[in-house]
Amino acid sequence: MFFACFFEKLFVNSWQKSRFFMYSFETQLRPRYAETDQMGYVYYGNYPAYYEVARNESMRDLGTTYSEMERLGVMLPVRDMHIEYKRAARYDELLTIKMWLVEMPAAKLLHKYEIYNEQDELINKGTTTLVFVDSKTMKPCRCPEWFAERLRPYFEK
Amino acid sequence: MFFACFFEKLFVNSWQKSRFFMYSFETQLRPRYAETDQMGYVYYGNYPAYYEVARNESMRDLGTTYSEMERLGVMLPVRDMHIEYKRAARYDELLTIKMWLVEMPAAKLLHKYEIYNEQDELINKGTTTLVFVDSKTMKPCRCPEWFAERLRPYFEK
Amino acid sequence: MFFACFFEKLFVNSWQKSRFFMYSFETQLRPRYAETDQMGYVYYGNYPAYYEVARNESMRDLGTTYSEMERLGVMLPVRDMHIEYKRAARYDELLTIKMWLVEMPAAKLLHKYEIYNEQDELINKGTTTLVFVDSKTMKPCRCPEWFAERLRPYFEK
Amino acid sequence: MFFACFFEKLFVNSWQKSRFFMYSFETQLRPRYAETDQMGYVYYGNYPAYYEVARNESMRDLGTTYSEMERLGVMLPVRDMHIEYKRAARYDELLTIKMWLVEMPAAKLLHKYEIYNEQDELINKGTTTLVFVDSKTMKPCRCPEWFAERLRPYFEK
Repeated sequence: MFFACFFEKLFVNSWQKSRFFMYSFETQLRPRYAETDQMGYVYYGNYPAYYEVARNESMRDLGTTYSEMERLGVMLPVRDMHIEYKRAARYDELLTIKMWLVEMPAAKLLHKYEIYNEQDELINKGTTTLVFVDSKTMKPCRCPEWFAERLRPYFEK
Repeated sequence: MFFACFFEKLFVNSWQKSRFFMYSFETQLRPRYAETDQMGYVYYGNYPAYYEVARNESMRDLGTTYSEMERLGVMLPVRDMHIEYKRAARYDELLTIKMWLVEMPAAKLLHKYEIYNEQDELINKGTTTLVFVDSKTMKPCRCPEWFAERLRPYFEK
Repeated sequence: MFFACFFEKLFVNSWQKSRFFMYSFETQLRPRYAETDQMGYVYYGNYPAYYEVARNESMRDLGTTYSEMERLGVMLPVRDMHIEYKRAARYDELLTIKMWLVEMPAAKLLHKYEIYNEQDELINKGTTTLVFVDSKTMKPCRCPEWFAERLRPYFEK
Repeated sequence: MFFACFFEKLFVNSWQKSRFFMYSFETQLRPRYAETDQMGYVYYGNYPAYYEVARNESMRDLGTTYSEMERLGVMLPVRDMHIEYKRAARYDELLTIKMWLVEMPAAKLLHKYEIYNEQDELINKGTTTLVFVDSKTMKPCRCPEWFAERLRPYFEK
């Protein structure tokens, strides 16, 4: 409850206003038939993959790719995920996934997401925390400098 | 942070002790090849389906099935999900999913989950909230009495 | 063997030449991380969903949608599928799915598919047979006239 | 048509009779909610993963695992798959997957499958061809001798 409240108010009121101090990104997709279930809507367990599509496309928007990240020896396993489901999404309707990186990453990436349908109704909102891991040592590491450089402009006043 | 702390301490220390006042259930599965990703572990987005396997099998343990629930006009969409990932699970290793219903349901089901590998290491833990919905009106409804009856013995002193 | 031979020769040599007498369509997608497996490539079981993406988008190209088909009381279950895997596809590379309807449908839809990577190498090719089913009677039915009308121009000389 | 005929007759009549000269295996699973689609049945693209569950469990039945195969440097990518869908499977019903290896493998594994529901009705039948690949050279290789040894008893008169 508290969290929901906080999210709703603070998120909409202050984040949106201060959008020059965060990285935001938007992409679209259509749920596949495979992703519906017999309730007639998108299965709740498919949204983590949708969030990942947004993260993935945002990397391209930043001029790199997650494949590049892996080639350079850094993995990004997910540490934490939270999803609040508001409304069901249907097969083939055009969904808009909005995504925000709300702080300049040090050792982890904190993403926030909101998915909207064509009527601009909120389907769900969520957060994930990804940690930078060195793929040789399999130990946590810091955000690689070359990636930090790409993000820095979005977090400067 | 606060939540994690609370969860860790209170969960392990007091829930486990008071297990006669909750419904607990355990099931096992082996991750399929399809469920791994190129990182070499189970994809983070497959755990919601694993949690659902536990919910599903627990219904059978309670002497009913989720299909029966749907036939009787009640759906159980997921309202909320949280997962804390601690360790990666591998293809084909035997996972144990522990699940708890920590309060007698009124209008929703609050499940808690913990997944362990064969070395009894915690893979992840999570929670979901499901709401009872009347499939004719598509409005929230109360837990059907016939299902409440099956759960009541677990919540009585 | 025989089939492969036939496919290879006849397909490339004569179908491509006679393309005015069939309906052909092309779409693109990028494999998601969720769709790879620990071998490091797209899991073989994900291609049926990719083929379905092509069928789905082709409906839109024809000025309708599969949702519309279902609303009008016709379902299209898959009766038969064959896939010949030639090469592995990787996470996030841009795949082109080519699709052909090689005969004007009567009671079923016979699709052929070829998937290519960015180097224009063949990933796999396949076929599916879908049958028209009346969703009230659950019996096979003929291709609805309104849909046949949309396809007819592609099969006329 | 011809193929279907051949399969039906020869398969049932002669393979079953000569079962001492092949390796056969049987396993069971229940379709998950995630695996259904809005048509109310198991999505056609989920059966390749079910077939893989059978292959996977058969390895354990043979006293090894597919993980062991990979550790010893051999991969088994799928080269070919064919599925004939006869009937839809439903959420949570107990499916029996029957699987046959019909010839002693040299450079590839040819599996045949049949899936039955609780009423012993045929859901679908299929075949896959997997090829042995050396994971160092990524070239095709022969069936490893240690694995051939486990299979040989099933193919001797």
